[in-house]
Amino acid sequence: MTDVAVIGTGLVGTSIGLAARRGLGGAVWGYDPDDAALRAAAGREAVEATASLEAAVRAADVVFVCVPVSAIAAVAGAALRASEGAVTDAGSVKGEVMRGVQTEVGSDRGLLARFVGGHPMTGSERSGPGAASAGLLDGAAWALTPAEDTDPSTTDLLEETVVALGATPVRLDPDRHDAIVAMVSHLPQLASTALMRAAAEKATGDPELLLLAAGGFRDLTRLAASSPELWVDILLANRALLGPALEDYVAELRRLASLVERGDADGIREVFRTAKRERLALAAKPQARVGVAILAVPIPDRPGALAEITSALAERGLNIEDIEMVHSAEGRRGAVHVTVGEADADEATEALAEHGHDAVRLA
Amino acid sequence: MTDVAVIGTGLVGTSIGLAARRGLGGAVWGYDPDDAALRAAAGREAVEATASLEAAVRAADVVFVCVPVSAIAAVAGAALRASEGAVTDAGSVKGEVMRGVQTEVGSDRGLLARFVGGHPMTGSERSGPGAASAGLLDGAAWALTPAEDTDPSTTDLLEETVVALGATPVRLDPDRHDAIVAMVSHLPQLASTALMRAAAEKATGDPELLLLAAGGFRDLTRLAASSPELWVDILLANRALLGPALEDYVAELRRLASLVERGDADGIREVFRTAKRERLALAAKPQARVGVAILAVPIPDRPGALAEITSALAERGLNIEDIEMVHSAEGRRGAVHVTVGEADADEATEALAEHGHDAVRLA
Repeated sequence: MTDVAVIGTGLVGTSIGLAARRGLGGAVWGYDPDDAALRAAAGREAVEATASLEAAVRAADVVFVCVPVSAIAAVAGAALRASEGAVTDAGSVKGEVMRGVQTEVGSDRGLLARFVGGHPMTGSERSGPGAASAGLLDGAAWALTPAEDTDPSTTDLLEETVVALGATPVRLDPDRHDAIVAMVSHLPQLASTALMRAAAEKATGDPELLLLAAGGFRDLTRLAASSPELWVDILLANRALLGPALEDYVAELRRLASLVERGDADGIREVFRTAKRERLALAAKPQARVGVAILAVPIPDRPGALAEITSALAERGLNIEDIEMVHSAEGRRGAVHVTVGEADADEATEALAEHGHDAVRLA
Repeated sequence: MTDVAVIGTGLVGTSIGLAARRGLGGAVWGYDPDDAALRAAAGREAVEATASLEAAVRAADVVFVCVPVSAIAAVAGAALRASEGAVTDAGSVKGEVMRGVQTEVGSDRGLLARFVGGHPMTGSERSGPGAASAGLLDGAAWALTPAEDTDPSTTDLLEETVVALGATPVRLDPDRHDAIVAMVSHLPQLASTALMRAAAEKATGDPELLLLAAGGFRDLTRLAASSPELWVDILLANRALLGPALEDYVAELRRLASLVERGDADGIREVFRTAKRERLALAAKPQARVGVAILAVPIPDRPGALAEITSALAERGLNIEDIEMVHSAEGRRGAVHVTVGEADADEATEALAEHGHDAVRLA
């Protein structure tokens, strides 16, 4: 049985509390200097409210510091001094946080044995305890970034705890973590926002432009609707590593553009083949890396249409690996792309046909 | 009643044939020099096979030339000479095609009155008549690009015909069409392929990198799995306009990166706010430009799980505007993001709760 404390009962802290209640079976103490947030988390039975950080962490085996990046070092230092348990955080950058905690404990370096950086890779565009859910952590990757001073038993304990919360621990060096998220999280955000801005600038002279923006453009700009406030903090905290990731990306763009400009069909084909192979290896889910089939099914825009399609497959016991709705620019009708196992493709097509849905296999 | 001819019975030509059978009520003659493709299209009852282009087009009111871009001018010229109907094509670039047809007819410029460029903005990663479906055209935007010489009655007839085929006509100047698709279709493809390549290069030294690649990265790289063969042709045909679109994009990327590098929080926030507003105006569907709510629902990985969720909403008559599955990097569990009308959000949450699904509202 593991007793935990959560400091900061916003979206992530409260979700950790709910997941701890579900998966750990011990006490879950909570503290937040914002009394309304603490009461809301306690009201959802995510935590047992305490009167101070010290009261919350005193008897905890694991302390989760779920406060904004700029406040982590001070709060983690206080938690290390007031408890004998392992302490971790939930910040989305790690190098700066680890160095901040080190500075904070100063000459008391022994305390660092009980600290390991953490980053549950989940989230929501909403914030606050009201939007929290244990499900937010289900299956999420959760980076754990031990420092040199971290005792291996601290990282081991956190690894077990993260698994019990429903997530998947991934051990990483703090600076490698930051370089990786610069590439797979922060750069995609910049790429999406910049594409939306470039297209919108062009659309001011060309009102039809966004009418012709089909599925691909929508996929690429979905992230552009993310929270400005959240992203200002994240981008600034990781700015040193975002620059090189952006330069890698621009270099790839220019390499490809120059092949197009020179009319080098073989060169373009080779880049596209490589990227296609890499993207298929990524797949909808890692378990389904090979052997999936994508079926396009026209779908009318009315309640129940999607339920007919999913139920037709459920009746046959066929699992849907992924699903995506594809809307036309102006139409009232669209299609849904359903990914099933390769071996299920024919039976799925048949099941859909039986219910009057004419599926076309795309891949 | 409109009688049509389809020259080239591949994916698009055969789909047009099927949609014409469904929506036009007239004859649908077809010809393809590839006898197997013609027999396959006729076998699907998409067209009535004829022995030559001339036989197919002779009595047609509308001729659809559905051949590769490089062959359009010659085939369209032959169709204009052999028929008295309107002639259009289905190529994904228009300026080059329009100029090619003009050169082809030479001194016989009168023929151009019956030609209008066309681009049904749909497709599939598969090709050939076997993958065709009338549904591919349902709700798709269909650009129509009249030239100076095109008679207005030709464009009007095509507009009516496109509507009867289930698609939505959008009239555009040919070169504006090409500039627009460079920005909203060809550039997103380059942006996606380049991001996949940049991340994969980095992943060769960092095998954990792709483990931490979550939903955003997957959205942005989905297009990178597109057909290399198809894209080589499209990119080369539109290379003159792709360059400027790419430069606009790189300029936006650098502008944003420089705000990050300088630590200009207000500047970043402003760009993100603008892009968010623009992306929300784009919405999942144009009809639903305002007032949607996104619900995150944890979902177990087993047959029928998705059907439970969609059926719970269907029972209450609630329409699903969009749906997206969000898989974790390594987990067996994930979540589904369901977009419903703003006014339906509370009832949807309640309906899901009744079936044991705990939805969290994201936006």
